[in-house]
Amino acid sequence: MPDHKIAACVLGATGPVGQKLVALLARHPLFELVALAASPRSAGKVYGEAVHWLDPAPLPEMAAALRLQAAVPPLPGNVVFSALDSETAREVEPLFAAAGVPVFSNASAFRTDPHVPIIVPEVNPQHLALIDSQGFGPGFIVTNPNCSVAGLVLALKPLADTFGVEAVQVTTLQALSGAGYPGVAALDALGNVIPFIAGEEEKIEQEPAKILGEVVDGQVQLHPLRISAQANRVPVLDGHLLSVSVKLSRTAALAQVRECLQSFRGAAVSQSLPSSPPTPIQLLEDPLHPQPRRASEAGGGMAVRIGRLRRCPVLDVRFVLLVHNTLRGAAGGALLNAELAVAAGLLQRPRVSDGAKAVELAW
Amino acid sequence: MPDHKIAACVLGATGPVGQKLVALLARHPLFELVALAASPRSAGKVYGEAVHWLDPAPLPEMAAALRLQAAVPPLPGNVVFSALDSETAREVEPLFAAAGVPVFSNASAFRTDPHVPIIVPEVNPQHLALIDSQGFGPGFIVTNPNCSVAGLVLALKPLADTFGVEAVQVTTLQALSGAGYPGVAALDALGNVIPFIAGEEEKIEQEPAKILGEVVDGQVQLHPLRISAQANRVPVLDGHLLSVSVKLSRTAALAQVRECLQSFRGAAVSQSLPSSPPTPIQLLEDPLHPQPRRASEAGGGMAVRIGRLRRCPVLDVRFVLLVHNTLRGAAGGALLNAELAVAAGLLQRPRVSDGAKAVELAW
Amino acid sequence: MPDHKIAACVLGATGPVGQKLVALLARHPLFELVALAASPRSAGKVYGEAVHWLDPAPLPEMAAALRLQAAVPPLPGNVVFSALDSETAREVEPLFAAAGVPVFSNASAFRTDPHVPIIVPEVNPQHLALIDSQGFGPGFIVTNPNCSVAGLVLALKPLADTFGVEAVQVTTLQALSGAGYPGVAALDALGNVIPFIAGEEEKIEQEPAKILGEVVDGQVQLHPLRISAQANRVPVLDGHLLSVSVKLSRTAALAQVRECLQSFRGAAVSQSLPSSPPTPIQLLEDPLHPQPRRASEAGGGMAVRIGRLRRCPVLDVRFVLLVHNTLRGAAGGALLNAELAVAAGLLQRPRVSDGAKAVELAW
Amino acid sequence: MPDHKIAACVLGATGPVGQKLVALLARHPLFELVALAASPRSAGKVYGEAVHWLDPAPLPEMAAALRLQAAVPPLPGNVVFSALDSETAREVEPLFAAAGVPVFSNASAFRTDPHVPIIVPEVNPQHLALIDSQGFGPGFIVTNPNCSVAGLVLALKPLADTFGVEAVQVTTLQALSGAGYPGVAALDALGNVIPFIAGEEEKIEQEPAKILGEVVDGQVQLHPLRISAQANRVPVLDGHLLSVSVKLSRTAALAQVRECLQSFRGAAVSQSLPSSPPTPIQLLEDPLHPQPRRASEAGGGMAVRIGRLRRCPVLDVRFVLLVHNTLRGAAGGALLNAELAVAAGLLQRPRVSDGAKAVELAW
Repeated sequence: MPDHKIAACVLGATGPVGQKLVALLARHPLFELVALAASPRSAGKVYGEAVHWLDPAPLPEMAAALRLQAAVPPLPGNVVFSALDSETAREVEPLFAAAGVPVFSNASAFRTDPHVPIIVPEVNPQHLALIDSQGFGPGFIVTNPNCSVAGLVLALKPLADTFGVEAVQVTTLQALSGAGYPGVAALDALGNVIPFIAGEEEKIEQEPAKILGEVVDGQVQLHPLRISAQANRVPVLDGHLLSVSVKLSRTAALAQVRECLQSFRGAAVSQSLPSSPPTPIQLLEDPLHPQPRRASEAGGGMAVRIGRLRRCPVLDVRFVLLVHNTLRGAAGGALLNAELAVAAGLLQRPRVSDGAKAVELAW
Repeated sequence: MPDHKIAACVLGATGPVGQKLVALLARHPLFELVALAASPRSAGKVYGEAVHWLDPAPLPEMAAALRLQAAVPPLPGNVVFSALDSETAREVEPLFAAAGVPVFSNASAFRTDPHVPIIVPEVNPQHLALIDSQGFGPGFIVTNPNCSVAGLVLALKPLADTFGVEAVQVTTLQALSGAGYPGVAALDALGNVIPFIAGEEEKIEQEPAKILGEVVDGQVQLHPLRISAQANRVPVLDGHLLSVSVKLSRTAALAQVRECLQSFRGAAVSQSLPSSPPTPIQLLEDPLHPQPRRASEAGGGMAVRIGRLRRCPVLDVRFVLLVHNTLRGAAGGALLNAELAVAAGLLQRPRVSDGAKAVELAW
Repeated sequence: MPDHKIAACVLGATGPVGQKLVALLARHPLFELVALAASPRSAGKVYGEAVHWLDPAPLPEMAAALRLQAAVPPLPGNVVFSALDSETAREVEPLFAAAGVPVFSNASAFRTDPHVPIIVPEVNPQHLALIDSQGFGPGFIVTNPNCSVAGLVLALKPLADTFGVEAVQVTTLQALSGAGYPGVAALDALGNVIPFIAGEEEKIEQEPAKILGEVVDGQVQLHPLRISAQANRVPVLDGHLLSVSVKLSRTAALAQVRECLQSFRGAAVSQSLPSSPPTPIQLLEDPLHPQPRRASEAGGGMAVRIGRLRRCPVLDVRFVLLVHNTLRGAAGGALLNAELAVAAGLLQRPRVSDGAKAVELAW
Repeated sequence: MPDHKIAACVLGATGPVGQKLVALLARHPLFELVALAASPRSAGKVYGEAVHWLDPAPLPEMAAALRLQAAVPPLPGNVVFSALDSETAREVEPLFAAAGVPVFSNASAFRTDPHVPIIVPEVNPQHLALIDSQGFGPGFIVTNPNCSVAGLVLALKPLADTFGVEAVQVTTLQALSGAGYPGVAALDALGNVIPFIAGEEEKIEQEPAKILGEVVDGQVQLHPLRISAQANRVPVLDGHLLSVSVKLSRTAALAQVRECLQSFRGAAVSQSLPSSPPTPIQLLEDPLHPQPRRASEAGGGMAVRIGRLRRCPVLDVRFVLLVHNTLRGAAGGALLNAELAVAAGLLQRPRVSDGAKAVELAW
């Protein structure tokens, strides 16, 4: 391993999100995958044999040869990416933090903990400050939001900053990969819609208030917006499509809203991270788009696509938003947060490697 | 043909809605299918050879043997069911009305005409009175609503009557059969969602105001509710699923809303029509339902199913509603309107046939 | 319970095949469903709450109210239908037979047992004689074949009788419902084909030789045909489609083969059973058919559909065959065998009930 | 345009195969896309507006800006790639050849012409010699095979060379993209299989005999193998899966067959072409593979994947083969043939460009 990359370990490596993390880390400029952990049932097996690899792109050979370990510290690596289920995460992640390892978690276990930030680098990088008060030990835990929220807040942030956001109506059409593996049975999914996803609507309704909130005296003051969510599972492989209506605080012409979304670039520090998309939001004019089958096209799956922008006869503006649920909404989100932490000096800073974008900090 | 049934003709018989009309008329107690018409391209062919029959249930033999005619009067039959596309309907339907034939149309061509009612028998049977001022000639035109609206107004009617309805947010997940045949290309539909259906949102936003309006001095006073709609096409065969939020005029406890929907039976005259479902609304408790694959189960595809009823953090109540788009939303809707017209004495009253429900009028 | 029906119990009632048995028994003229059994995990629960009901048609209310029992004798009922997995069936079915209960099993556990017949009433009703030598006790076990084989042998039987069959090439395109529930993960099935089904090819290659064999001295002499099978799982809900090529023993004109298949009616005793289709084989001329989405149309899902009949450039004749895998291929097959046993006097003969076809025996 | 690339034109650019050609040519080391032609209906429009772009990867900007021309000579470019439908191809391709332009055609129009070769560079590059006798004029026409055949012959070639091939049984499970756009209606495709593709079986049964034949005195002597094909359309986006059984001329152990397939590298000249996969055949051990959703993974969609290799109880060996239908089976096949022609000196030889593999000829 070249000494200028940070050694990384993935917990929950066999699920869809864990697999995406493995795929992304296999070619990452700042991190080097050195260890994989899974449930006790899989521990001891070689990853290439234990995993039911879902991506059309092949399993990286280096990862295939790694032997799965149990998800308990100590494990090799100076940073941990967690794709554990929430229940396991609640037990295990604090152990790694206590052992001095920074944990970037996709699990929901600690998202409601007032000392654990839910970070989207374009939106609230300053929430990293919350970790000072965590008390897990020398390490820390940083989470990324629920997969739908990860996309939604990218649209709400510029609207909130420019016009104010009072209320949001969301109906989601969520992809199968969001349910893990084996997840939804084909007999339920084929040619059907399931109008319920356990726990999803609560997360969509609650997490944005924290992410969009201000940090005051080391605590997040929740943003006062109200959100109403209906989550549906649709027979799509990847890509959550959100139908969104927003009530703004101040009157805005549609052209102003369009300009506001289109010109959004995110917090300065987020713009130079290796996994940052060129622009966080792609605004589409073709009314037939965005469509989930093209979710990964947008900025390597890290940008959201917004289409059908128009006035809402009930609230103020209405649009459709597509977010790649396992990239921006999960694995890519966790990775982007770790890149942010590197930029912020919270992780051992690597020497700049050849292929990497220069990481320049500018909060 | 037994003399106690009314001879019926279907225009646009080869499309999905026309096929459903054929299937329903083949076993109807009041009507007897005697003629089928289609585009000039198909006219002259035997139906069984010209049609690309979509239903899993077999094409009725009697219909299979009928020879397709051009969709111009005169055609055999004392009533016409129109499943024509809107453009053709605009030209052709008035010709039949002028020739003295009552037309029950699923087309949108005349729905915005102030003299043409959009009828849902449970909701606004009294709008039949509009036909007195039509002026098409000795016949008349009655329409049924857009497929999504047909389901939506069944839920809005009892809410409007009991609590008042101010505003409605709808996101639809619409089935492929709503797009006709060949309709959506498999390459576009498979594993995908298309967030746009031409003309659909306008219909969803406008038709309910007319249907829920009062007839005053022979004219419909539009109901003042505002509706915001986002229409999506999903890879489902039959059954439109609507995610709905409603702002009520008066405060209501959730239990009251539940009771209001559950106890809705529709206008008295609608309750004894042959195609009426036992109850127009089926309220489901299982959060995993309703699902489109079971759309036809509810009251022969004529009842809507409502699930996930709960408070809406932005408006007042939120729920999911499933309507069978080619039955309640199209063919069944047109047929139910014709049954209503029979009950109202607007069609030659058949002698009661053996298998038929007794048709007793009670407005 | 009216005394003229035979009380029946279903083992493995929560899976897709068990569900079909429940649905069929709920409206059966000879049998009355009185008990349901499932895995110890579900035992004690009310069926309507424990089952994940898959059929679009609603769960029969009478069944919904039954309390699930453990699958061990004694259970109420004079006949048992088994939809158990093979491993459990191997343990449990002999216990019921030992307790004096006739078992009609869809499981593969005993299909290779020389004393247990694999019966398709149209093909080999005389194999019922095997049960005389079973030795399980006062009861007995009768199996129906693998779901693909159930359809295949209906085509092979008339060909074997008329021309002789030497060899068969089969490639199957099998529906998801054949894998049970939850069965195949949607992430694997959607827009994909899986070219392997564990154990399936062996059954397809071996079971027909037994079913088409002669009983000599109480033993089945295997038919000498050779079969080569490739099984694929396709994203279809119900209906296995088989691509079949057959090498005949004697030269035959295509018209003769067509006539042979078309005129096949099956063993005389099979023709008057309540679940028998009007004809076991439906021969289709339209080259676009048969298609799985219409599998259940044919004779209530009990007839097979054959299309694309033509000469094979390598063997002799080639065709496509569709069999409804959970009806003819599973639940319906087991039920038909029980009806055959009633006809053969092996089950307590019910008094003829109103709605039932008259059961007249003619071997 | 740099002078070291050959200017290329695509006919039929708006269909799925034309789109793949555009995508491949946009980043090709030997060819430069300079013109696009389509039906008269689209001619005159800018490509980016006229095309319904299907690929998840974005439409190359350079191509998006090209204005569609009518498919008649003269058109810019020194080589033409034809993705025309067969009927148009029959008229138009000879015009380009007469005008001195080499035509690499995916259309079937001239595949049965004894003077037009069907080329797969790994299999029969020497068939290029046929063009000497074409008589279309100073240009020529070279075709690539039917999409299923393109994959099948890659497996048959080494078997024929090593053991001899007498007969082949094939059942195909073909992807939707093979039917063009709009192609199959979603209402027909979803959750269904269509057991017929017009003209497909004839091509599969006939083309391999020509491709595997010897050129004697400037004419192809057909290979005497017999092929029997059943073609099915399945709800899969890309990737044809073939279930294949082969009767060999000489006895072979399974291990020998495996070794034969695995060691196949194709004709020497084919190994150094820019689009050649590392190995034409990838042999898989995992019985669950190959699966269509991973068709494009193998050698950029140019290698075939073979799995489930085993003895066939009726013929000799049996396996499953996956070919990417729009890459190896269409656009990639045409492009590979043009690369072969460059290597053979039949096209103006480009100066070696930076990114290109060195093209060294070795027949």
